[in-house]
Amino acid sequence: MHIFYSLLMSSQVVGSTSNPQVSGVGLYFCDGQRKVDYVLVFHQRRHGSIRSPATTSVSQDRLSIVSNGNFPPTGASDVAPARGDGIPGGEAASVGEVFIELGAAGENESTEPAEHEMHLIRQEFEANLIEAGLEIERDRELKAHGPSFTRLHAPWPVLCREAEFLKIKVPTKTSYELKEESGFGSSMSTVWRKLNQPFQPKVSHQDHGRTKFLSHCFSRDKLHLYNITSKDTFFDNATRGRIVYEILRRTVCARTCQTIGISTLIAKGVYDAAFPIHDGDYKVIGHLEERNDRQVLHEEWAKYSAFYKYQPIDLVRKYFGEKIGLYFAWLGVYTQLLIPASIVGIIVFGYGVATVDTNIPSLEMCDERLNFTMCPLCDGACDFWHLSTACGTARASHLFDNPATVFFAIFMSLWAVLFLEHWKRRQISLSFSWDLTGIEEDEEHPRPRYETILLQKRQRKQKNKKKKKKNESAIEKLTWKDRLPGYFINVSSILFMFGLTFSAVFGVIIYRITVSALMAMSPDPETKSNVRVTVTATAVIINLVVILILDEIYGAVALWLTELEIPKTETNFEERLILKAFLLKFMNAYAPIFYVAFFKGRFAGRPGNYVYVFNDYRMEECAPGGCLIELCIQLSIIMLGKQLIQNNIFEIGIPKLKKLVRALKEKESAQTEKEEERPPQQWNLDYALAPFEGLTPEYMEMIIQFGFVSLFVASFPLAPLFALLNNVIEIRLDAKKFVTELRRPVAVRAKDIGIWYNILSGMGKFSVIINAFVISFTSDFIPRLVYQYMYSQTGTMHGFIDHTLSYFNVSNFKTGTAPHNSEHGDITVCRYKDYREPPWSADAYHFSKQYWCVLAARLAFVILFQNLVMFLSLVVAWVIPDIPKTIVEQLKREKKLLVDVFLQEEKDKFQLIQSLFAKDANLQPSSHMLQPGQTIPIPGRYSTLPSGPTSGDGGGGTRARCRAASFSQFSRKAPPSPRNENENSRHTAV
Amino acid sequence: MHIFYSLLMSSQVVGSTSNPQVSGVGLYFCDGQRKVDYVLVFHQRRHGSIRSPATTSVSQDRLSIVSNGNFPPTGASDVAPARGDGIPGGEAASVGEVFIELGAAGENESTEPAEHEMHLIRQEFEANLIEAGLEIERDRELKAHGPSFTRLHAPWPVLCREAEFLKIKVPTKTSYELKEESGFGSSMSTVWRKLNQPFQPKVSHQDHGRTKFLSHCFSRDKLHLYNITSKDTFFDNATRGRIVYEILRRTVCARTCQTIGISTLIAKGVYDAAFPIHDGDYKVIGHLEERNDRQVLHEEWAKYSAFYKYQPIDLVRKYFGEKIGLYFAWLGVYTQLLIPASIVGIIVFGYGVATVDTNIPSLEMCDERLNFTMCPLCDGACDFWHLSTACGTARASHLFDNPATVFFAIFMSLWAVLFLEHWKRRQISLSFSWDLTGIEEDEEHPRPRYETILLQKRQRKQKNKKKKKKNESAIEKLTWKDRLPGYFINVSSILFMFGLTFSAVFGVIIYRITVSALMAMSPDPETKSNVRVTVTATAVIINLVVILILDEIYGAVALWLTELEIPKTETNFEERLILKAFLLKFMNAYAPIFYVAFFKGRFAGRPGNYVYVFNDYRMEECAPGGCLIELCIQLSIIMLGKQLIQNNIFEIGIPKLKKLVRALKEKESAQTEKEEERPPQQWNLDYALAPFEGLTPEYMEMIIQFGFVSLFVASFPLAPLFALLNNVIEIRLDAKKFVTELRRPVAVRAKDIGIWYNILSGMGKFSVIINAFVISFTSDFIPRLVYQYMYSQTGTMHGFIDHTLSYFNVSNFKTGTAPHNSEHGDITVCRYKDYREPPWSADAYHFSKQYWCVLAARLAFVILFQNLVMFLSLVVAWVIPDIPKTIVEQLKREKKLLVDVFLQEEKDKFQLIQSLFAKDANLQPSSHMLQPGQTIPIPGRYSTLPSGPTSGDGGGGTRARCRAASFSQFSRKAPPSPRNENENSRHTAV
Repeated sequence: MHIFYSLLMSSQVVGSTSNPQVSGVGLYFCDGQRKVDYVLVFHQRRHGSIRSPATTSVSQDRLSIVSNGNFPPTGASDVAPARGDGIPGGEAASVGEVFIELGAAGENESTEPAEHEMHLIRQEFEANLIEAGLEIERDRELKAHGPSFTRLHAPWPVLCREAEFLKIKVPTKTSYELKEESGFGSSMSTVWRKLNQPFQPKVSHQDHGRTKFLSHCFSRDKLHLYNITSKDTFFDNATRGRIVYEILRRTVCARTCQTIGISTLIAKGVYDAAFPIHDGDYKVIGHLEERNDRQVLHEEWAKYSAFYKYQPIDLVRKYFGEKIGLYFAWLGVYTQLLIPASIVGIIVFGYGVATVDTNIPSLEMCDERLNFTMCPLCDGACDFWHLSTACGTARASHLFDNPATVFFAIFMSLWAVLFLEHWKRRQISLSFSWDLTGIEEDEEHPRPRYETILLQKRQRKQKNKKKKKKNESAIEKLTWKDRLPGYFINVSSILFMFGLTFSAVFGVIIYRITVSALMAMSPDPETKSNVRVTVTATAVIINLVVILILDEIYGAVALWLTELEIPKTETNFEERLILKAFLLKFMNAYAPIFYVAFFKGRFAGRPGNYVYVFNDYRMEECAPGGCLIELCIQLSIIMLGKQLIQNNIFEIGIPKLKKLVRALKEKESAQTEKEEERPPQQWNLDYALAPFEGLTPEYMEMIIQFGFVSLFVASFPLAPLFALLNNVIEIRLDAKKFVTELRRPVAVRAKDIGIWYNILSGMGKFSVIINAFVISFTSDFIPRLVYQYMYSQTGTMHGFIDHTLSYFNVSNFKTGTAPHNSEHGDITVCRYKDYREPPWSADAYHFSKQYWCVLAARLAFVILFQNLVMFLSLVVAWVIPDIPKTIVEQLKREKKLLVDVFLQEEKDKFQLIQSLFAKDANLQPSSHMLQPGQTIPIPGRYSTLPSGPTSGDGGGGTRARCRAASFSQFSRKAPPSPRNENENSRHTAV
Repeated sequence: MHIFYSLLMSSQVVGSTSNPQVSGVGLYFCDGQRKVDYVLVFHQRRHGSIRSPATTSVSQDRLSIVSNGNFPPTGASDVAPARGDGIPGGEAASVGEVFIELGAAGENESTEPAEHEMHLIRQEFEANLIEAGLEIERDRELKAHGPSFTRLHAPWPVLCREAEFLKIKVPTKTSYELKEESGFGSSMSTVWRKLNQPFQPKVSHQDHGRTKFLSHCFSRDKLHLYNITSKDTFFDNATRGRIVYEILRRTVCARTCQTIGISTLIAKGVYDAAFPIHDGDYKVIGHLEERNDRQVLHEEWAKYSAFYKYQPIDLVRKYFGEKIGLYFAWLGVYTQLLIPASIVGIIVFGYGVATVDTNIPSLEMCDERLNFTMCPLCDGACDFWHLSTACGTARASHLFDNPATVFFAIFMSLWAVLFLEHWKRRQISLSFSWDLTGIEEDEEHPRPRYETILLQKRQRKQKNKKKKKKNESAIEKLTWKDRLPGYFINVSSILFMFGLTFSAVFGVIIYRITVSALMAMSPDPETKSNVRVTVTATAVIINLVVILILDEIYGAVALWLTELEIPKTETNFEERLILKAFLLKFMNAYAPIFYVAFFKGRFAGRPGNYVYVFNDYRMEECAPGGCLIELCIQLSIIMLGKQLIQNNIFEIGIPKLKKLVRALKEKESAQTEKEEERPPQQWNLDYALAPFEGLTPEYMEMIIQFGFVSLFVASFPLAPLFALLNNVIEIRLDAKKFVTELRRPVAVRAKDIGIWYNILSGMGKFSVIINAFVISFTSDFIPRLVYQYMYSQTGTMHGFIDHTLSYFNVSNFKTGTAPHNSEHGDITVCRYKDYREPPWSADAYHFSKQYWCVLAARLAFVILFQNLVMFLSLVVAWVIPDIPKTIVEQLKREKKLLVDVFLQEEKDKFQLIQSLFAKDANLQPSSHMLQPGQTIPIPGRYSTLPSGPTSGDGGGGTRARCRAASFSQFSRKAPPSPRNENENSRHTAV
């Protein structure tokens, strides 16, 4: 019964906003009123015949609008007999045919079979769209080839219906005051706001006031509750696009191709593209005040010069939808939190710089008087050498390997936890202010590929079991059997990729070993002295190049492998793709770093018993200052190089190149055609942009960067700084891309960043372990501690270097491995860095007690560090509530307000009804008497005693009036519905 | 507008079910129709005067029903002038007064002031309840003292209204087939079902069929959708109770005492108790077929003889609500999963038993030929001893300290993860089948104590700032300042309790040291040989007693401390209480075990340099077989003792005692009164039961048990078995308590087990670390491994015992500590268990290389174990999806069906409207012509072309008819509403 009412209401609203909007070129149907919410594009093939001149003369206007007008009842009754059969396909077909006769007569072109088929599919699909309530406009222009646009418009009733289904939350008229801070807090926040002023983008804030509108799921029964000023703007463009996409997604093509949704049709090539259109050009031409959202975004957000400003996240969300909004919000939070991390990193680095001249171990290493004669670095060709020649690396090592680094590693582990917790809170705040609380996941349709494979399977099964009369519907889904080959290829490919990565790393190791061996043999002393630097630098660059190449390859391979798995839904697909791509890219980016951190130099053996690869080359050792400095070099070069190259070449260069190529092509084809006279419409402009292809690459880049910042941060405290610098640019780069270079993506609702959060959190946990191992095994922190507190006679670090060096009797060299031409003639004992028994001990060259002692200390440190940090993380996560307190309070308040509003409404309704009945039934009020034991339904109580304990909001009065108005309208006999009015007016017109 | 319709519908339903139900004594009002949903009890004080005989003669019936009959309009109009002022308190007061005049005239007793005040409060409260729609019945009987019962009944409209507010999900008429497994799976499940048959309780399963009814939040607009067979049974008793409780909870007492809700009134002593009543007696008297739910639960669930059966969880939930249902479901899952753990535990123990005779270390220890002379166990009095005398403990040690234990520790860590994951799934399944998906947390009112303190604060503030004219509403909540003293006492008390626990542990240590020293000095050889056993056993028993006593104390202290914190809501209170109680009880139960596992024997020093406490007593050492066997004894005695004593004494004994005492008291008071003739009503019986006091103690007991099962499982593989045996009894014990000994609790909705899950999961994580340390540090597993692979000449364990014993030169004993009277005369060197350098080494008695090597291995094992298990746990948690696949599919299906139902409904509505208008407006159908460019709202499309893509469910037809019927009813002019009918009939009656 209430649909009367909603009909009435909707017609009222429809009626109230008929002023034509003419601003914005190419954003509306030809009538200048109906907004283009979505565009479908297909490519007209070149060899279509020109249509007959008769039809051209009939349609004078360049555009024809095919809308869901009323079919004549005769047509409907024609269809009626088929209705009972319940074959939706058949019916849809007949509707489609009707449509073709009526509206699309001019489109009948004689194309080649496949093209013709596509044409039919398009016809059916669009007919079904019209049936679903959308309105369609097509180019009527003569166009033998080139893109052909079908514009879709969702009228108000469709928007209402879908908004109700999608449970879109919209603001109601009820607003409430946000709690103001009082006293000190208030003045603080004022100061803070003033300080922040220059960093705020110049965007009109509707949400940042002192009041917030209560929002509620859209419902056509409750139209009077919402703040509807104009039916055209009540749903913003992004929401409209989403609603239309929702219809496109579920519209079936039963007769011609048995598919569901636009994405399948695009996959089949029936359409080329489908996208909502941008809000207009992004370049501001007129007044600054009349900027559309895209222009505002371009001016205030997508500019490098705005790098110091906050992002206008609410506007981003309004324009691009929640999913993209969340990405940028996440990126913003990450970048913001990198600031303190960078500052602490700089301080830690500064501490290293400041203490390098007072650090006893490096002083001892540089002290030429101590005169440690070290064993040669290669067999035969190399000579003994003095430790003081490695003074440089020792000093450099200290920059990164000092007690502050341990503090920094703990700090960064907690920072990662804090970052995640902070993001959780921000996410909740956003989903609250974006009215996403309580939304459910939308159901998804299978992916096109899944459907194709399923169809094939059914057909195969049918062929095989024709005689057995098995029910076809038994095959409802693909089982693991169908996916087995896919899984098999998956596992083997991933293993192969792993192998590839490892062999690449190994190849670089071989390169390093051989080149350094060769260079060491060279007679040029200049070459010899620069061996380590040259080899390390070139090897890292080779590594970097390999990583960049494999990164691209792995991206493609992951996509291919995921396709092979035939995931059912898009979400499924995305998740699997992300996992695979992450695994491969992570491996790729970090394998060489892991090698340097944990394996390099640990399998080199000892003098007299070296480990050889290929029987010839000795395994490489770490620099005398420790492996940490090499790790640091490796890390910084790969991180910087990757970011710079990926940002510049892959994100700026290649898109520019692609655009250039496309523009050239367009020009070429345009030259053969006759020139278009009219200015390009918005959909033409948008079609020329690159399609939006998901956020996965953007997230992936950041996650890998997060790895650099968190995983090995103990070895490179400047990583957060470099990440920060990169991200400040990255935000604007991405923003530019979204605003100017991509078609507008469909606004997808999303509550959170999904699997990325899990990856981040897993990485955070992993980083604790890695950092623990880096500090205890790669750095010299633990040996120094052990020396100071267990072995040092004076309690200072003096003598540490001597303690770390073992003795080797040169007579124990294997034949041929001793230096051929030694400048140090009379050497009997050389030193090497290890904890082993001296030659004069009983078990010479075995690990000494110190070795085990240091090892135990290292391991104990790992346990301590890991559990301490894990415990602290838990405490941090527990102390910081996931949902900010203010939000909890506001949610409670909103809920209470909502109940109040509904209770008030109910009361008003009953009052109204009573007054109606009172008029009708002429009851004598004096005869009402209380009869104990008699029960009446409770609502009656409300009408006689309206202000019960639940009353008490101020906004009920106006609503009651609005409600009363509509009731009284209805009570003077059923008025003609809008539909009937239309029909009546048409009667007279016809 | 749609309220017309819902009114109609509800009146229809109300009309259809007026058959009186007379079964069940004392479950209904005196009219035998209206169910008693809730009972409020207050105690009449003895010195109330007897009311006047005039009133007694007026009411002939023993019971008077005060229901929300219609007030005369004059009364309503009297109230009307006050309505606009918006002072709910004042209005409620006037209503209350009206009520007092009309219904409660007979209750006016002249009691003492406080009693009189309470009487007024009760009057106002009950008047407000009536205003909220509840119906009330009171004892009219003369009763000078004793409990006085106020019965509440919620009529259908109230139930409907509240069900809508509370978003209670109810089954609709639409049902769907659950997917049947086909082929092999189907036959497997049949076999499984058959096998399971004897374990199933004999409860009628409505849910276990092949179909499930779609459920949807109750809404009065959609009454036609629900499967309402009778308005009396549509909401089950638990739901009715909950609804009434909801009203009781939010009903204000503005005039007399400014409180909200029944709990405050109970806290103030205005009422003694408030509870829903049981479904009748739990003893089956009549036919087995006609058992009420309570009887079914008693027969099939709350019996020890049903221990092998599954629990009828659905029925438990139906009767006691979701929260208690979840507790028993959780307990069931836990107990079930203990079965495999017990089996593996038994196997592991069996492995120990089977290999004890082939185990080389224990054989070597028992081998008298090896003849290790050990250093004395105490100073002076003790003699040197032979290791072979400790053969028994060595053999016993092997039972628990063997390689299988390591496997078992890993297994149990994964088991804990599996248990939690399994429970998560079960929880989701339950919340799906109990229709809890998507419920939100109910808002809670502040606790009485919080309100009192807040009021005090306000008054204080008002007094202080009377002149400053500050707004009173500024004080909205208690801040940290108000709670500071509470927090302070909290922290200091908890620290004190910790100290208490530790000193208790320390006291037992002292007891052990002194007693064993004294016993060692005793001349009796019998005493001497039993030193260790006697001391250990008595010490553990002392420990146990201390634990049990402190456990009770800590429970009370936690309650007291939480009250001091003044938490705002009940949930808040519960959470804080649980955390505190858990912390204290955990500490208490595990402190002695932790001591034995990780500290005992580690600070004993070495011969010649022992550590002394109180300058006299040597710190205790572990048994020669390792500390593990002592840990095992400690653990098993504490666990078993705690469970047996707590189960028997605290859960069975004390309640029985309490009951006895209460019964005695009752009898005493009854003797002074005159005998009651009529049989006790259900509310009398229920009032005699103990009130329900929350699930916290039940959960706490199980969580502490879970600790025994998981934390130290490496040392005692039989723990799961004992836990299993205990829990099988525990379930039935708790069930018995709930069914027979407690008042019916209000059915509380809960989605999950709340904070307990976090505690469990935290404990699972903690157990990984603890087990890692137990294996590597408490057991001899690592030293054995190290010996076998690094030091053993033969690669076997031969010589291990020798290797673990260090040498000590007896000449190095400090003066007076060497044995006074040694039977072994010529001993120069004795052995002790440690890795230290021998006396003849350069750094004698320092830790040897082996020590560091073993230490490194131990630490490495901890790292390996911890990270391996954590990784495996992550994998397990990741592999097992949180939501079972079938549930995901069913949820999707339900959602789709629901959309279909609503779409169909909408279509039907419009068809109906059209047909109505078609009749009214006499439109010519032939004039419908398609006008391109004209837009009509989409619903019109549905009416002309009803079978669009969204159609296709079979159930729409009947619903459409049902809808149509109601519409047609409505279309013949507005019929009088039920209210009006009542009024009309009363007109004639009066």
